[in-house]
Formats: sequence, structure tokens, C-alpha cells
Amino acid sequence: MIHLLVAKVKRVLQGCGAIATNQADVKLLGFTGSPFVCRVQIALKLKEIEYKYVEENLGNKSDQLIKYNPVYKKVPVFVHNDKPISESLVILEYIDEIWKQNPILPNDPYQRAMVRFWSKFIDDKIVAASFKSVFTVDKKEREKNIEESTEALKILENELKDKFFGGEEINFVDIAAVFIAFWIPLIQDIAGLKLFTNEKFPKLYNWSQEILNHPAVKENLPPRDPIFAFLKARYDGLLAASK
Amino acid sequence: MIHLLVAKVKRVLQGCGAIATNQADVKLLGFTGSPFVCRVQIALKLKEIEYKYVEENLGNKSDQLIKYNPVYKKVPVFVHNDKPISESLVILEYIDEIWKQNPILPNDPYQRAMVRFWSKFIDDKIVAASFKSVFTVDKKEREKNIEESTEALKILENELKDKFFGGEEINFVDIAAVFIAFWIPLIQDIAGLKLFTNEKFPKLYNWSQEILNHPAVKENLPPRDPIFAFLKARYDGLLAASK
Repeated sequence: MIHLLVAKVKRVLQGCGAIATNQADVKLLGFTGSPFVCRVQIALKLKEIEYKYVEENLGNKSDQLIKYNPVYKKVPVFVHNDKPISESLVILEYIDEIWKQNPILPNDPYQRAMVRFWSKFIDDKIVAASFKSVFTVDKKEREKNIEESTEALKILENELKDKFFGGEEINFVDIAAVFIAFWIPLIQDIAGLKLFTNEKFPKLYNWSQEILNHPAVKENLPPRDPIFAFLKARYDGLLAASK
Repeated sequence: MIHLLVAKVKRVLQGCGAIATNQADVKLLGFTGSPFVCRVQIALKLKEIEYKYVEENLGNKSDQLIKYNPVYKKVPVFVHNDKPISESLVILEYIDEIWKQNPILPNDPYQRAMVRFWSKFIDDKIVAASFKSVFTVDKKEREKNIEESTEALKILENELKDKFFGGEEINFVDIAAVFIAFWIPLIQDIAGLKLFTNEKFPKLYNWSQEILNHPAVKENLPPRDPIFAFLKARYDGLLAASK
């Protein structure tokens, strides 16, 4: 009887986020090199949540991935007590609601709205445009995207007031923006572009150095060289196909 | 002294959402015919919040709009105690956090994640694609978008289990999806398309009839005829330009 009671109390406490869950209850389906998976890994590290990481082969998607994310069949999929969630920002909100320690969203409703606005801005205006600045065959289209991502980075540069977007500590926006700190420098090197430099965006560049060295971020970044090689091959293939 | 105390108590209660705020504190910058503005109007009606509505002329944007939404210069902008918020789904989250009556987001964190997922799905997969199914010059591009919006509507059709996405009451997803009930039938009539019909999507079609007749929705829908004429003129202009 007592072990049943203990298990029940444990479940209740886990539900409140009062204690770390059993690793088996928390699972992340990911792909090394995905900026969206990396966001979830950083949040889980900040919250000190143990979890089981499952590397997906995106060339041959697992039945599990298709079952858990039938709509997009993409990573990340976060699975908590066998219930799956996809979309990295949706996952971050969920994690922050379940595990209260080291909050990544502010308490104040207006500040929360601002955090949601800027995270969406990063996804809508920076991620796709900077990616297309490199991985687009059409020159005109590429230049349009370079211009758009430069404009968007300028806006974000003006928005940064402190060490981090979260102030002295990193928050939801910083996690969403890790794409800028790690992935943009990587893809611009592939194409020989200067999208994001210290000269153009000094505040954002300083921020990028701070965030890349933040312990929760640092240990969850993918290894640069294989990601570079993987994306470089894709870039070379694109160039070859366009000839 | 007493009036100061009364004012203070009122402010505290307003902060808790316990009583409706003063109209002057709550403002919505909108444009009649915008599906995104309509979302905010429905949420405010459900919450029984009085507010000042300011119609924007999008051909000649006001200083106020540019000041409150310098990033996108678009409506809706929701202004509460002089603090502006843009992006309709971000505004809905804020409204639900500030005014607790008639919640539009569920309490359970997993259900909240699902609501966020499906609202984002509607914006990412249905709104743009169905609009481009009509308002695109390139025939191939148009057909691609017809296919994509049909696929997305199919997925949503399978997701609908009850009278509303929120069950017996409308919730956040229903509000986001009003675009499907009102705007898709309107734009498909302009182009003589059959994107969303009773035959293709019987559950979603029933839902659309229910939601269009929901009191909070019905009284906030824009008048059909002028919106039709406005968009028809745009469509005709597009056709003429493509010849």
C-alpha cells in the first residue's frame, strides 16, 4: 500500500513541478544541428529537468516521430507522460508552466506579451530570411532576404537594453535568439556573407558572445564542424544545381 | 480622501480583472475587414470589456499607429494603460491573462499547449495559403496554395471533435479560426473557387455555421458586402495587371 501512496504523492508533486520528473516521463525527439531542438534543450537544462533524448534520422523518420507529430513530422517533439507537443516556442511555454523553477517567462502579463512578440519576430523575420539569404538559388531572392534579415537584426539591436533580453538572466527571447548567435555566423561563413558582424550590430554581437558562453547554452550547442560540413554540402549542391 | 481610496480600490480590482476597466484605458486600433482585428474584438466581447475602437486608414497610417507599432505598422494594436501590444494571438493571450472571466485558454498546461499549437497552425498553414489561393497572379503558385490550404483544412476537420474547438464553449482556437468561417467563403466567392464547402469539410462547415451565429462573433463580424467589394476590386486589379 505504502509504495502506491508514495507513487501517487510523487505524481502529484511532479505535476506541480515540485520535483524533477523521472527521466522516462520526459522525452525529446531531436536532430543534432536543429536550432529549434536546441531551444528545448537549453530550457530543459535551465530547469534542470532530466530527459531521454532520441536522435531522429530525418532521412528515414521513425514511426514514433510520425505518431507523435503527424501534422508536421518534424523535430523537436517534446513528450511528457506520453503526451507529445511540437513547435519549439509552444514547447518552451509548456515547460515554463509545468516546471516553475528558473522561469523563462516574466510574471508580468505585459512583459510576457513582449516576450511572445519578440520571439515570434525572431521566427517570422530573422530565421527564415537569414536562412534564405544563403540557401536560395535565385540571386534577386537571395538579395531580398539579405536586406530583410539585416532590417530585422537592426530592429532587434535597438531592442536589446541589457546583458540579455531577459536582463541579467537569460529568458525566452534569449533562447529563441540563440539562432542568431550560433547559426547565422555559421551559415554566413558558408556563403562568405557578412550578415551579422560586430561592426554592424555591436550590441547584438556582444550579447551573442555572452549567450554562447552561458553554461546552459554552451553545453547544448551542436558541434560546429559537422554542422558546417553538412550545411556546406547542401550549399554546394544548390550552387551546382543552379548552374 | 474617500474618492482617492475608491479610485485606488478600483485600480486594484481592475488589475485583477475583477471589474471592467474604464473605457479610456483600453483601446483597439483596427481596420474594418481585418480578420486579425476581429479576433481581438471577439475576445473583448466575450470578456465584456469596454474599449475605445479607433479605425485606422491603412492608406494613410496615423502617427498613433506608427508610434504604437513601429515594427510592423499594422493593426490590430491593443493599448492597455497606454502600453501597446501587437500580433493578434499575443493580444489574445494578454487579454486572457488580465481579465480572468470567461477564459479562452484552458487551465491545463497540456491543453493550453494544444490550443497554441492549433492557433499557430491556422495562421501558418491556412490563413496565408487560402489568401494566396485567390490573390496570386501566377497560376501554378495559386494551385499550389489551393492544394496546401485544402490539406490543412483536412487536418483541422479531423481535429474537430465537438460543437466548438473549445467543446461546448468557444475558445482561443475558435477565435483564431473565425477566418475560416467568414473570410474563406468570402474570398472563394470572389474567385469562383470551392475551397471550403459543406461537401468537402462537413464537420468544419457545421462548426462555421455555429460560430457565425455565436453572439460574441456575430456582432463583431464586418459587414460582408463592402468587404466583398473591396477585395473584389483588388482581385480584378490583380487579374488586369497580369494580362
